[in-house]
Amino acid sequence: MESPEIWLHSLQTSTPQEGYELAIKLSRMGVKSTQPNVEVLKKLRPEYANNPTGLTMASHVIAVNFQTVAAANDYWKS
Amino acid sequence: MESPEIWLHSLQTSTPQEGYELAIKLSRMGVKSTQPNVEVLKKLRPEYANNPTGLTMASHVIAVNFQTVAAANDYWKS
Amino acid sequence: MESPEIWLHSLQTSTPQEGYELAIKLSRMGVKSTQPNVEVLKKLRPEYANNPTGLTMASHVIAVNFQTVAAANDYWKS
Amino acid sequence: MESPEIWLHSLQTSTPQEGYELAIKLSRMGVKSTQPNVEVLKKLRPEYANNPTGLTMASHVIAVNFQTVAAANDYWKS
Amino acid sequence: MESPEIWLHSLQTSTPQEGYELAIKLSRMGVKSTQPNVEVLKKLRPEYANNPTGLTMASHVIAVNFQTVAAANDYWKS
Amino acid sequence: MESPEIWLHSLQTSTPQEGYELAIKLSRMGVKSTQPNVEVLKKLRPEYANNPTGLTMASHVIAVNFQTVAAANDYWKS
Repeated sequence: MESPEIWLHSLQTSTPQEGYELAIKLSRMGVKSTQPNVEVLKKLRPEYANNPTGLTMASHVIAVNFQTVAAANDYWKS
Repeated sequence: MESPEIWLHSLQTSTPQEGYELAIKLSRMGVKSTQPNVEVLKKLRPEYANNPTGLTMASHVIAVNFQTVAAANDYWKS
Repeated sequence: MESPEIWLHSLQTSTPQEGYELAIKLSRMGVKSTQPNVEVLKKLRPEYANNPTGLTMASHVIAVNFQTVAAANDYWKS
Repeated sequence: MESPEIWLHSLQTSTPQEGYELAIKLSRMGVKSTQPNVEVLKKLRPEYANNPTGLTMASHVIAVNFQTVAAANDYWKS
Repeated sequence: MESPEIWLHSLQTSTPQEGYELAIKLSRMGVKSTQPNVEVLKKLRPEYANNPTGLTMASHVIAVNFQTVAAANDYWKS
Repeated sequence: MESPEIWLHSLQTSTPQEGYELAIKLSRMGVKSTQPNVEVLKKLRPEYANNPTGLTMASHVIAVNFQTVAAANDYWKS
């Protein structure tokens, strides 16, 4: 069902900030897996990017994905 | 109550991306366990696939399931 | 307050799919603990089983419980 | 601020089901800590106990607390 | 940006109930970090303390923070 | 896509309170990644800072990020 394009090679990143950016990507791919039409997504964007509830919800999803990425990198401890 | 069809053989996957796809599947099965009627699900789909809140909520569920799948694969570290 | 009936014997299951079914059961018992009246629950069911938000929320609760069950089974690794 | 009454002695329970009941108790104490007036709580109860969204949200909180209790008991493995 | 007042000295507590009280405090500080005006907070309080959804959401945040505090205390096992 | 500015150097902090402040920062960056326009964010702020649901949701996101930061610091045990 999904396109064979590889967009997720690894959960390991060099730095915490790259890990955070990966968490953002994972969150967006979750949206895209439900609505693959990029035109529709573009049209919907202003609706939640200008809505406080939508923005907090988006930050929440990123936080959950960041938990996963941070654990995968042992929190970049060493 | 559930059909005896086996749809979940293992939480282990070869790659992170396959793990993400399994997380999507787990999320959909959660919906299907509450509403098993595929015709109803098809009818409801446009309602949330065109709704920013619905899309963010869907991405959230995938993120939670991806935590589980990623832990099951020790984050594909080795 | 709760009936003495034992409905949760163990978090260990033989397969991942049985674990997922246990997660569904845990989610339903959470609802039942707040609204024990089965007749009321039956009446409410169509309201959320035909509502995309309600279905995604239900899938979310199952995902959280599945995290617990999967950890309890060490992700059925061995 | 809180009454000195001890309502939470331990997170350890003998069985998984007692652990689930403790998770329900923790969830209720979370509500009570915000609204300590039992009369108000009684009045509000029918409002969410007859509302599918409210019931799913309640089950969600129990699921989060059950994660904590289950981990505290090493998932009642031994 | 934040006042230099130290309100969080440690995640370790003597008992599970003190840990639960710390989870309540963490949840309130999360609100206060977004709305530091105590007068506004007082005015908003009745709005959610008399609203079932608001109460369940508050209990949810406490549950998430209690997971953190409980893990920090190794679940008060010993 | 993101500006190359480094805003997240490490998840390790000296004290639990600094960890909590980092969790607040992570939560805000999640919002900013979706709506990078600071003027829009300023305009939206009063909308949720005066809304009990918005405040509880914000506290929830901080709680999730604080789980990550606390784990990264081994809960500041030693």
